[in-house]
Amino acid sequence: MVLRKAEEWREVAQKMQTHRAETIAAVEPAVPEPPKDLPLNVTHIPAKLLPKETISITESTTEQLLPRLAGGELTALEVTKAFLQRAGLASRLANCCTELLPAEALERAKFLDDHFSENGKPVGPLHGLPISVKEHVGMKGLDLNAGFVSWVGRTGPDDAIILKLLWKAGCVFYARTTEPQTLMHLETSNNIYGVTTNPYNANLTSGGSSGGEAALLGLRGSCLGIGSDIGGSIRSPAANNGVFGLRPTAWRLPVAGWAGTQLGEEQVVPVIGPLSTSIEGIKIFMKAILDQAPHKIDSSLIPLPWKTDPQLNTRGKRKLRVGVLSDDGVVMPHPPIVRGINTIVEKLKSHPQIEVIDFPPYKHEDAWRIIASLYFGDGGAEEKAAIDASGEPWRPMSHWIIKENPYVKALSVAEVWDLTIEREAYKAAYARHWNSVGTGLPGPDDNGASFFADPLPQDAEEKIVDVLLCPVGPGCAPPHNCARYWSYTSQWNILDYPALVFPTGLQCSEEDKVDKDYQPRNKDDKYNYELYDPKTYVDAPISLQLVGRRYEDEKVIEAYEMIAAAADLPLQ
Amino acid sequence: MVLRKAEEWREVAQKMQTHRAETIAAVEPAVPEPPKDLPLNVTHIPAKLLPKETISITESTTEQLLPRLAGGELTALEVTKAFLQRAGLASRLANCCTELLPAEALERAKFLDDHFSENGKPVGPLHGLPISVKEHVGMKGLDLNAGFVSWVGRTGPDDAIILKLLWKAGCVFYARTTEPQTLMHLETSNNIYGVTTNPYNANLTSGGSSGGEAALLGLRGSCLGIGSDIGGSIRSPAANNGVFGLRPTAWRLPVAGWAGTQLGEEQVVPVIGPLSTSIEGIKIFMKAILDQAPHKIDSSLIPLPWKTDPQLNTRGKRKLRVGVLSDDGVVMPHPPIVRGINTIVEKLKSHPQIEVIDFPPYKHEDAWRIIASLYFGDGGAEEKAAIDASGEPWRPMSHWIIKENPYVKALSVAEVWDLTIEREAYKAAYARHWNSVGTGLPGPDDNGASFFADPLPQDAEEKIVDVLLCPVGPGCAPPHNCARYWSYTSQWNILDYPALVFPTGLQCSEEDKVDKDYQPRNKDDKYNYELYDPKTYVDAPISLQLVGRRYEDEKVIEAYEMIAAAADLPLQ
Repeated sequence: MVLRKAEEWREVAQKMQTHRAETIAAVEPAVPEPPKDLPLNVTHIPAKLLPKETISITESTTEQLLPRLAGGELTALEVTKAFLQRAGLASRLANCCTELLPAEALERAKFLDDHFSENGKPVGPLHGLPISVKEHVGMKGLDLNAGFVSWVGRTGPDDAIILKLLWKAGCVFYARTTEPQTLMHLETSNNIYGVTTNPYNANLTSGGSSGGEAALLGLRGSCLGIGSDIGGSIRSPAANNGVFGLRPTAWRLPVAGWAGTQLGEEQVVPVIGPLSTSIEGIKIFMKAILDQAPHKIDSSLIPLPWKTDPQLNTRGKRKLRVGVLSDDGVVMPHPPIVRGINTIVEKLKSHPQIEVIDFPPYKHEDAWRIIASLYFGDGGAEEKAAIDASGEPWRPMSHWIIKENPYVKALSVAEVWDLTIEREAYKAAYARHWNSVGTGLPGPDDNGASFFADPLPQDAEEKIVDVLLCPVGPGCAPPHNCARYWSYTSQWNILDYPALVFPTGLQCSEEDKVDKDYQPRNKDDKYNYELYDPKTYVDAPISLQLVGRRYEDEKVIEAYEMIAAAADLPLQ
Repeated sequence: MVLRKAEEWREVAQKMQTHRAETIAAVEPAVPEPPKDLPLNVTHIPAKLLPKETISITESTTEQLLPRLAGGELTALEVTKAFLQRAGLASRLANCCTELLPAEALERAKFLDDHFSENGKPVGPLHGLPISVKEHVGMKGLDLNAGFVSWVGRTGPDDAIILKLLWKAGCVFYARTTEPQTLMHLETSNNIYGVTTNPYNANLTSGGSSGGEAALLGLRGSCLGIGSDIGGSIRSPAANNGVFGLRPTAWRLPVAGWAGTQLGEEQVVPVIGPLSTSIEGIKIFMKAILDQAPHKIDSSLIPLPWKTDPQLNTRGKRKLRVGVLSDDGVVMPHPPIVRGINTIVEKLKSHPQIEVIDFPPYKHEDAWRIIASLYFGDGGAEEKAAIDASGEPWRPMSHWIIKENPYVKALSVAEVWDLTIEREAYKAAYARHWNSVGTGLPGPDDNGASFFADPLPQDAEEKIVDVLLCPVGPGCAPPHNCARYWSYTSQWNILDYPALVFPTGLQCSEEDKVDKDYQPRNKDDKYNYELYDPKTYVDAPISLQLVGRRYEDEKVIEAYEMIAAAADLPLQ
């Protein structure tokens, strides 16, 4: 779409917002209008405005809904209607949806209910479950703009493969959610729909780029949704909204059918993954897809089924070894994050089956230099073209990540190869670092270390750290246009390690004082330090991250369940 | 290394050849000098010149040697000495080694024998087995030139990871083998060591780029060796020399520690894999490495163990479904290849547990365009620099693949991304094509096909082709400087499908007449057609390829064993 006048982009945006409003207005029973003067924290509003049964359904988790749907205790229609209503309200509260799909969702729900009546059994393991979807995951015939005004009017040629698999498992698609211009913010702000706010504190960002998903889940307008992540885009918003989010290892879930810039860039592999109001929802999502052996239709995928047998041999034989990486050595996390980690670590330390090991960072600043250089190998040309085509303004975070980022430059192919060699060397070094912590084996830079990794000694397996507990960011959800430090999440993208974000059940409070004696280490640390004031962050959820080694997604989740039991962490 | 005078490269080459001659001369008992007037086919020479016991050991397969070594019936020293002697002779016959390692190998063998004496058991599953290694797989402190004169003098900073794993399993490294200038020929010719010839017919190429390995195996100077493959470099030489070779799926075996240009290029992933005189040797190699869980030290690898349980549910329940792709639709294979396929297919057709399905090619010319464009994204700058730095001449096949190849041009990063999108689309289309053959499901271009793949119907699994039987090239080993058509092997590199090359036990003969009525389809087909004359190819082994779907390496081998039993094909 080429617009002739700079101002025409506003008309496009208006048209899209009108369409959205119409889809919300079409929901029955009607979506309640929220009060004019909203508090900063709107998470309690839905319970005041929605019927009791709607609240009961929408505050259920995936694992609570599915057996009731599969048993005929709830119909797909009533569950779908409840989530449509609450999603509409959530969008009015946090600006988190691009559109609702009431007609399509109700038709689907009716089909499922009819099937159930006729056959006396569910269509599949997700029978009747409403699933929300980030806008850039394509749906046939629906807009697919990835947050660019100039892309409005592009439509999905077909449903993305992941949607086809979820559909086959019996789900209902009813809501599409917001994402930022470029998809490359840890916030959610574009010129089509505006800014998605944090339901816990409207002064703060919902995070991004899957911020629409996470805000919708935070407000319980969804219990299970689809996000995507190339630097933290599932995890930052999951953390900011107090829900669960998994960045799976790459090539486990199919991505074909999504839209975005940088398609074909695979030095840093973007992934699709679930956000959920419960840890069980994450597992159900992964299992429902991987049980269908998607590698048989998408040969980019690795044929690893979702493992349900125990991955941790901890019962009796040895302890769960939890590495704690509380600070990446570059930017010191804010006091609430430190409190969150300390609270958990104290509890883990006294648990007989858990061993806590201090896990030092290994050159995280190098990791950021490499990944940030590889993101935009064309110098950001594709994003610039997509933004400038409509005359829409650059959102602050787009400007920051592309125009203010010292690592963005147009590379030659040889430079990309060199950076890829650096990436591989960094991955190799980090694997050796991981193997060395707590085991006595030499780390990559230790005296006596060989140039390439040696085979592990027989008994190493019993000593190596299982999972890492670490921050999701250098603070909780920051104020809008301030999410400028990606490394706590992008670190695991460059390594392609699976990473789970979970709410601790704690929230920021004015008791988390500034450390007045702290001397910032560098410019980024200073920016982050100065961002912190306990008043700013009130009510923001404190979330943390659990990281595993490549392809150990299941182990990460199992470790979380052990840690949650030991440290009284939420499962939903 | 920068040379001042153009002629100095000859001195470098001479020095390397002298070193090689010295290492062969150091072998005890002495390597016999072959007669001056050699026949074209030298495969019968070793049996005439070597002691009986040496012949007996070196004509044993991996699976025959290992239990005798592990049981103390043979010592590592006697096995190593036998292979050193025969490898020295093989190199004098076919110019296939860059150096022997008698001192290191004997020291290692002695260590293994001492260990065995002291402990009464082997070091590991490969105890005492000599393994030959393609030169560019780095060994600590030894030259690592990858076939470039200007790289002579570079040495391995450490052993490549795969060598460390094999070493831990108990093997002996005793011979390093030749490869072509650039590593990007399906022949083996460089300016350091000259041309590696085909032991079955010296007028023909050994194939490449792992041509030194394959010629050494063809002459039984090795029973198990390491090659590498980005377009056919394991498979072409394995075929030309009548031995087994496996191009495994990418990221199963570790590659860190090898040398070459294009490092960091990963749009087409190069792999390491085994060549062996027996199918069992291929399995033993893969299992010895994967049993060590190499992904724990190299996080680039996929944690898929080597599966030893049956991958084919054919016994009773359903037939093995063998797709036959006898012609890629672009270049018609020579009559011996057609004879080889027909001979096998006739036997398979009458087997009650095998179903033969005609498998049409799907746009193989597109696959070549994409892969050939992606190989040299820098326009071949790295190869040009490496060749021109010493003043050495361009070998004909280097010139052909880089300077005469219409798809070689310096790309922008955006162009690489676009080609990567094309590659992914091609992979997706091929997966759908595979799922469609013989099943009635729509292929990628069929009427009624959706834009992205649909989930498979419940019963599809029982109908889909298991493996493909196809040529390894458009003919048997061609005359030197004529291996210009890669598509029969590179096809499976772009798709990253595992591919096994096996000897049929048949050889080219003057009975394989030219089809005089054939009308070539295009320039490449004409070139290949005109290359054929039955007299040229006498004695060349007829080998074929068995291809499986991604990560189904084990299934390919199991299918080969079934096919071999049904069609009287060799297992060694």
